[in-house]
Parts: sequence; C-alpha cells; structure tokens
Amino acid sequence: MPPPQRRPGGRTARIRAQVLDAVLVELGEHGFDGLTMEAVAARAGVHRATVYRRWNDVGGLLADVLDAASGDDWHPPDTGSLEDDLAALNQEIQDAMTAQPSVMAALIAASFRSEKAADAQQRLWEDRYARCEIVVSRAVRRGELPPGTDARRLLIAATAPLYHQLVLLRTPPDPLLPRHAARTAALAAAAGAFGSPR
Amino acid sequence: MPPPQRRPGGRTARIRAQVLDAVLVELGEHGFDGLTMEAVAARAGVHRATVYRRWNDVGGLLADVLDAASGDDWHPPDTGSLEDDLAALNQEIQDAMTAQPSVMAALIAASFRSEKAADAQQRLWEDRYARCEIVVSRAVRRGELPPGTDARRLLIAATAPLYHQLVLLRTPPDPLLPRHAARTAALAAAAGAFGSPR
Repeated sequence: MPPPQRRPGGRTARIRAQVLDAVLVELGEHGFDGLTMEAVAARAGVHRATVYRRWNDVGGLLADVLDAASGDDWHPPDTGSLEDDLAALNQEIQDAMTAQPSVMAALIAASFRSEKAADAQQRLWEDRYARCEIVVSRAVRRGELPPGTDARRLLIAATAPLYHQLVLLRTPPDPLLPRHAARTAALAAAAGAFGSPR
Repeated sequence: MPPPQRRPGGRTARIRAQVLDAVLVELGEHGFDGLTMEAVAARAGVHRATVYRRWNDVGGLLADVLDAASGDDWHPPDTGSLEDDLAALNQEIQDAMTAQPSVMAALIAASFRSEKAADAQQRLWEDRYARCEIVVSRAVRRGELPPGTDARRLLIAATAPLYHQLVLLRTPPDPLLPRHAARTAALAAAAGAFGSPR
C-alpha cells in the first residue's frame, strides 16, 4: 500500500523524526545493504550513541519507520466509484513502487532481511488494508456492491497483481495494470465473488 | 508457481544433481543465511573445490537450482474446467509455500538477497506462467472463455492473491483462498475482464 510519509517533527519527537527521515533517505539511496547506524546518525545530525540506545540496530530503525507510517494521515482515494477508487489506489502503489529510489520497494526487500522489519511491515500492511475498507463500504452505500461484501478479499484481489508483478515477477511496470487490476476486481465483485462475509 | 523438483542424475549431470539437491535440503533447513558452499559440498559428497569452480558462490548455486527447475516436466492440472484447474494450481502453490520447510519460500526470500538468484527466479516465473497458458487455451477450446483471452493476465489475477498473502502479508494460510482466488479470476474472466489480447 502507499509508502510511509515524512512526519512533521514535534518536541521530543524531533529526534525520532530526524532519524527516521534519515533512514528513508539512506534506504532509498543505498538499499538495505548500505544502511548503517553510523550513516543514519550522521545524516540525521544525531549522536551515534543516541541512535544505538534508542533503536539498537538497523532492524529496529526499519521497524520504527514502518510503525511511524501507521501514524500518518494517509487515506484512500474517494472518486465516487469503486473501480475508480481501486484504480487510483493501484496507481499510488505503482508510483510508489517504481519511484527512483523507491523507499517502499526497499522496505519490502528489507522485510526479507530483518525479522523486526518483517513484523513491522506486517503491521503496516494491516493498517493500510484496514484504512482501505472504506472504499468498499462506500461502494456498498452507493449500491454498487451487496451488503456483506468481504472488503479485505476484494482489496487484496484488486492490489495483489501490482505487487506480484513489481515485487516478485520483477517485470517492468505496466501503465495499464493499475486500471486493469481494478476493473478485474470490480467485475468479479459485481459477479458476486466477494459476496458474503466469512 | 510450483517448486523445483529433484532431477534424476545422469552421467556428467550426476554431480550437478547431487549438488543442487544438497542446496535444496540446506536451504530448506537453514534458509539463505545458513547456506554455505562448504555445507553444500559436504552434504553432496563433492569436493569443495569442485563446487567453487563450477558455481562460484551461493548466488550461483541458487541460480542453477532455479534454472534446473525449468528443465523439469511439471505441467499444470487438467481437471476439465477453468475454475477447477486454477483452484488445483493455487492449491499446489499454497502447499509448496506452506511446506515445512518450504524450499519455494526460501528461494523467493533468497531472490531478495542475491542478484543472480533474482534473475534466475524471474526466468523460472516466466517458464511457469508460460506452461500455465494451456489452462486458458483449453478453456477457450471448451467455449468457457472467448478467443483472445489474455492468458497471462488471467493467470496472474488467479495466483497473485496467494503469493500476496503468503509472501508479503505473511498471513497464516487460508484453506479457502486457493478456491476463492480461482473463482474470482474465473468470474472476472467470464465477465470479460481479460477479453482481448493487448
């Protein structure tokens, strides 16, 4: 789902914000292999000992970046139709995954390297899919979908092809895929594929 | 898609088969982090120098495991209906991904660690999706789908939710998902979602 966004700093949150921003920049530039506590501390302008004390290791930094993203104010697109909402959501995903550098792609890759990052990545997915459920409930309210439509399954059907192509198959981004995957899920939903909650 | 299978040995292929089998076992037991040239050589009963000379490094071993899988005789299920073929295919994927240990899951994780493994994994995906296109062409011949149905898109829509859940979201396996994702793709296909080649 959409990538973590930078947070505005606040009092004691200032150091955290500086450090996490530095992680995003370092990760985008050098990937997991180039991410070090030293480089993050230097870029953040924070003493190395502080970074070690608070985050312990690179996995701790990544986990906190991901957890911080759950505190942002991201919300899914609201276009007025299910297919368009899903297409706009997929376009956000594709844009985030194909940005140069892509923080989102780097975080996903890092989740295969660090247990802490994997756990935090899982919490972020849950947060994002939960926030997206409103896309489905709005469609139900508009009468586009039957009540009881399984929001999570529909959302995963709509977004999974994007991740599959970009993260696993590693094919070049297909500009038509965000719309096509959205339409596929909307057609399946209209045909009753997600019709009853489980 | 389905995991690499062990190959029967042949003359000069014997050493390769022993080494690649050893990689699968080591990878399944210890994951990428525990995979070493030494352990593979020892388990295969092959001199370490031979393994280094022929495969160079762990990435080279993984790449060869994946390339060897393209030479197996795997073919997709043929049940007589599109939805059942897709459901059986998805069940194979879910079984392979949730096996303990799962060589397939370990190979996918390794593709985030080694460029060579990533390239080879990509070739294997291409091989598997190409072999699966017959599932769609059979459905076209039976009149279940219109001619010109985009086989690859349909196959990705059918299988992507499995990979998304198991590899990225890391949710516990859902025993209903193989069938449900198959039905979703079949319903979308019947509604014309993959109706024209691009």
